This record gives sequence, structure tokens and C-alpha cells, in this order.
Amino acid sequence: MSFDYDVIILGGGPGGYLAAERLGHGGKKVLLIEAEALGGTCLNVGCIPTKTLLNSAKHYIHALEGEQFGVKAEKVSFDWAKMQSWKAEVVKGLVAGVGMAEKKAGVTVINDYGTFEGPGKVSVGGKTYSAEHVILATGSVPVMPPIPGSADNPAVVDSTAILSLPEVPKKLAVIGGGVIGVEFASLFASLGSQVTVIEMLDEIVPFMDDDLAAQLRKAMKQITFNLGCKVESLDGGKVTYSKAGKTTEISADVVLMAVGRKPAVTGWGAENTKLDYSPRGIVVDDRMRTNLPNVWAI
Amino acid sequence: MSFDYDVIILGGGPGGYLAAERLGHGGKKVLLIEAEALGGTCLNVGCIPTKTLLNSAKHYIHALEGEQFGVKAEKVSFDWAKMQSWKAEVVKGLVAGVGMAEKKAGVTVINDYGTFEGPGKVSVGGKTYSAEHVILATGSVPVMPPIPGSADNPAVVDSTAILSLPEVPKKLAVIGGGVIGVEFASLFASLGSQVTVIEMLDEIVPFMDDDLAAQLRKAMKQITFNLGCKVESLDGGKVTYSKAGKTTEISADVVLMAVGRKPAVTGWGAENTKLDYSPRGIVVDDRMRTNLPNVWAI
Repeated sequence: MSFDYDVIILGGGPGGYLAAERLGHGGKKVLLIEAEALGGTCLNVGCIPTKTLLNSAKHYIHALEGEQFGVKAEKVSFDWAKMQSWKAEVVKGLVAGVGMAEKKAGVTVINDYGTFEGPGKVSVGGKTYSAEHVILATGSVPVMPPIPGSADNPAVVDSTAILSLPEVPKKLAVIGGGVIGVEFASLFASLGSQVTVIEMLDEIVPFMDDDLAAQLRKAMKQITFNLGCKVESLDGGKVTYSKAGKTTEISADVVLMAVGRKPAVTGWGAENTKLDYSPRGIVVDDRMRTNLPNVWAI
Repeated sequence: MSFDYDVIILGGGPGGYLAAERLGHGGKKVLLIEAEALGGTCLNVGCIPTKTLLNSAKHYIHALEGEQFGVKAEKVSFDWAKMQSWKAEVVKGLVAGVGMAEKKAGVTVINDYGTFEGPGKVSVGGKTYSAEHVILATGSVPVMPPIPGSADNPAVVDSTAILSLPEVPKKLAVIGGGVIGVEFASLFASLGSQVTVIEMLDEIVPFMDDDLAAQLRKAMKQITFNLGCKVESLDGGKVTYSKAGKTTEISADVVLMAVGRKPAVTGWGAENTKLDYSPRGIVVDDRMRTNLPNVWAI
């Protein structure tokens, strides 16, 4: 039996593009399918652009607060548009780098939405390709909880949209005190936003040691943290939350929904196959095999 | 048999002061002897003041080079005297903190030169104290190699003196491309000095992975690195070095001698006892016992 490819990989994020590279260098004929830019969330709307903006904010704060350390600077200001264009430049360079790496590895890249049709079969751009193996590397998307008033609310953004706000908000409310929420809270507080973080648990960044999390929280003095609070509803930038039966309302220009990310298990065909998955992700064994023959997931 | 103390510790650096604290909290009667400030090299003339100055330099560079990242600042300058006083303030605070910690642990501290007289005996301030155990925590000093022209040369400083230079030198020559030399090279290059590092080996920071060391070197573009070079002689700020038979001369305002540190095995009495030591340090077993009964060294 002959196949169009040895391996077809659905998703060009760090899971998919590195698998493609390794397989390409190992002599396999590989097709990598990515609907948006190579590099996935991390490179395009995750770690890289966030850290690039944080680095700009650090320069700003260092210039602003150098006096104590013996550094003088006058008329310190930041240019959000310039920060945005620098961020775009960094992302563009790295995305191009991934493209080059795939090219060097002999990987074929198709820039379009692919659909998993079942074991050994993936369609893209109206054509179906066969392969001995399929790797599903479809990544994750932000969770948007069904809080009343959150749907179609123009004040509400997720961690992708907040990266490209047209301007720094005067008041920012962050729903969720995990790593993503706290990182953006820190970024915008550094740039002068008045930031309130609303977290349901009793401490921020739950994956961090409790003692460290408390220190981190104390270090970010200019941010208001409302812990143990449940968001009840949204109305534009108005956030209503409750704590021990008491309801409070705050208003913000932008509301960041940062309650976590979830596996992207729909929208690329899984539902029309016998693939075993749940909202928690595609089910794999300890060798990353799914329940379908020669179909792997990362 | 009764002793003045359960344990006498000679040297109040991180080796000595932490041992004193732990023993004090463990209920032991402890005497800690330190001739200079508590905290030793690390706190007073090592890591802490160096990192404090490097942090100031980072603020300066960030203010100066923020443009690319969207940050504007005018008339950016640094004030070396202010950097020095901030450094002094940081060190003072931490030294006071160590003093407080010893106090809380019930440790007696004598601020004078102590002399080890043999097992169970240490003298200080004209008095001899007895103890069941003695811990030698005498630390290290900068190595000053016998390069012709280096002795009594006012242009030559060690890693302690360079921390308190009255001004930033226009030209700095650094003899030794290890961590200490490279750290000061980086600091003064950031502050505008024209810096040349002369290293005998073929790569800087020998304890670092070679690939990383090369990258580090390339990242510090404004520093001139002369590798595989032997310093032949000094004459004021004139440094003569040779490479493959060819002799070169450079001139500097300040010459930092940073070829390493050595254990401080003399000057505190070891030579008048039967303690087993060499220029490489006090000889200990895997439990930090010296050859003398109840005498320990760190």
C-alpha cells in the first residue's frame, strides 16, 4: 500500500512543527498543516508576544524608576504602537525561522484548515491526503466561561485579543489569577493601568508554591487582588462579583477573561470519526497513541 | 571538662554565620569571630555589591536603549556616586540582617581578628577562649599573580577595590576572563568604559559550557576579548601581553587583576598548629573534619 506521505501532522505549534522537523530530518516524507501562522499559540499569541511586551514594560519601568539606583532619565514615556510593532517584528522573525527550519527538514507545509477524516486520512483545501501515520497537534484555546453578560460583550477580551489592544486601558479587570491573568495584570499595571484581579481561589497562581505566590502578590503592590471571589455577571466593563454572600461591582474599560485554556478538540473533524476524546483532551496512552491505529496526539 | 563555648567559629561569611545560626538555634553556646563585617566576601565585596551595581547598570542600559522596544527617555545619565551609595545601603542592610539573625540565634559575635591556637582554643582581643569544637570558616582572597610590575602598582586593583573606584575608568583592562573578570568587564562596558579582557585560555568563563561561553562573548560586542594571551608585564596602566610569540601593549586607566581567588590559609594562626593544609585549602574529609580533633573547616 502506498501513501501520499509517511506522516501528516495537523497543527503547526510547538508540538506539530518540532515533530515535523524531527521526522523530516529522519528521512520521512512529512506534510504539516497549519491554518494560521506556524509556531502556534506560543509563538503567535502566547509566550513570545507576551514576553516581548513585558520586556518593553521592563525597559519603561527601569527608565522610570532608575533614580534610586543612580540612573537619571527625563521625559520617560512609552509608545504603545511602537511596542506593538516591535512585538509584531519579533513574532514575524520567529515564525519565518520556523518556516525555514521546516524547509530545511524537507517538510511540506500547507497553510490552510485541515480536517482529520480518520486513520491515515486528512483533507485540506478540497483534497484528501493519505499517510501511514497522523499526528494530531491541534493545541488549545482560551476558556470563555458562560458568565451572564460575557457573550458578545465588546469590553471582554481573551488572552489573544488583549495582546493587540488599540491602547492601554485606564482600568483593566482580570478574571482569573493564574499565570496568564497575572502576567497581563503585571504588564498593564507597569504601563499605568489601574488593574484589579478577581480570582475564585484563595491565592493566585495555583501551580506555584503558596508562600511564593503570596510574596509575588505582595510584590505587585499596585495591583488590587480580590481573592476567593466569584464573578456573577458582566455588563460591558462592569464586573459584579461576590464573596461570602456580599456582592461588589467594579467598572473597567477592558475585562480580560483569563480563567484558563482548554484543548481544541472540535472544529477539525474529530467529531466525525471514532477518535476517543473528551473536553479534557484527546485520550492517549503513555506513548501518545490514540485509540485509532497509527493516529497519535500531542 | 568545661569550655567557654560549645563551638567557636572563625570567620563570619556564609560558611561561618550560617553554621553559627544553626548551632545557636540548636541550643549550642556559640562564639562567632569576624574581623571585618559579618557576611564575608559574598555580602560585602562579592556577589551582593557586584549584583547591586550590575542592576544599576541594567537600569541605565534599559533607559538608554529603550527606543527599539517603544520606550522613550531623554537626557539619560548615571551617577556613579549614587550607584555607590545605593550599593553601600544594600550591603549595610544585609549585614545588619545577619547581625540580627545571629542575635536571634543567641550567638555571641566578636568583631576582631581571631587566631586559631589549636584544638579547642581560639584567641581574640588578647584573650583565649576554649570550646569543645572549632569551625574554621576563613574564606578566600583574590589571587595576585607575581606579574612583573604588578606589585605596588596604583593602577592595579583586585575585585574588592574595583567595587569602590572613585570614578568609572575611561579604559579598563581586565586580566582574567573568568566569571569575576567578565562580570566587571560587562559592568564597566555598560557604563561606557572601553574594556579589554586578556585571558590565557582559549575561551572565557572556563566553568561554562564552551558553546555558551562563545555566545556570551559574542553578546558582549563592545568588549574586546584577547584570548590565549599571556600577560608579560605591567607598567602603571600599560599591559604587555604575548600571543604565539607576538607581543602587544595596551594602555588602561585601571587594570583589574581577576585571575581567581585562593583559600585564606594564612594570617589566622594555622601555620603555628598541626593543622593539615596547603595553598589549595584546609584538608578535610567528607564530613568536613580536619586532621585535628573536633576542628572542622568549611
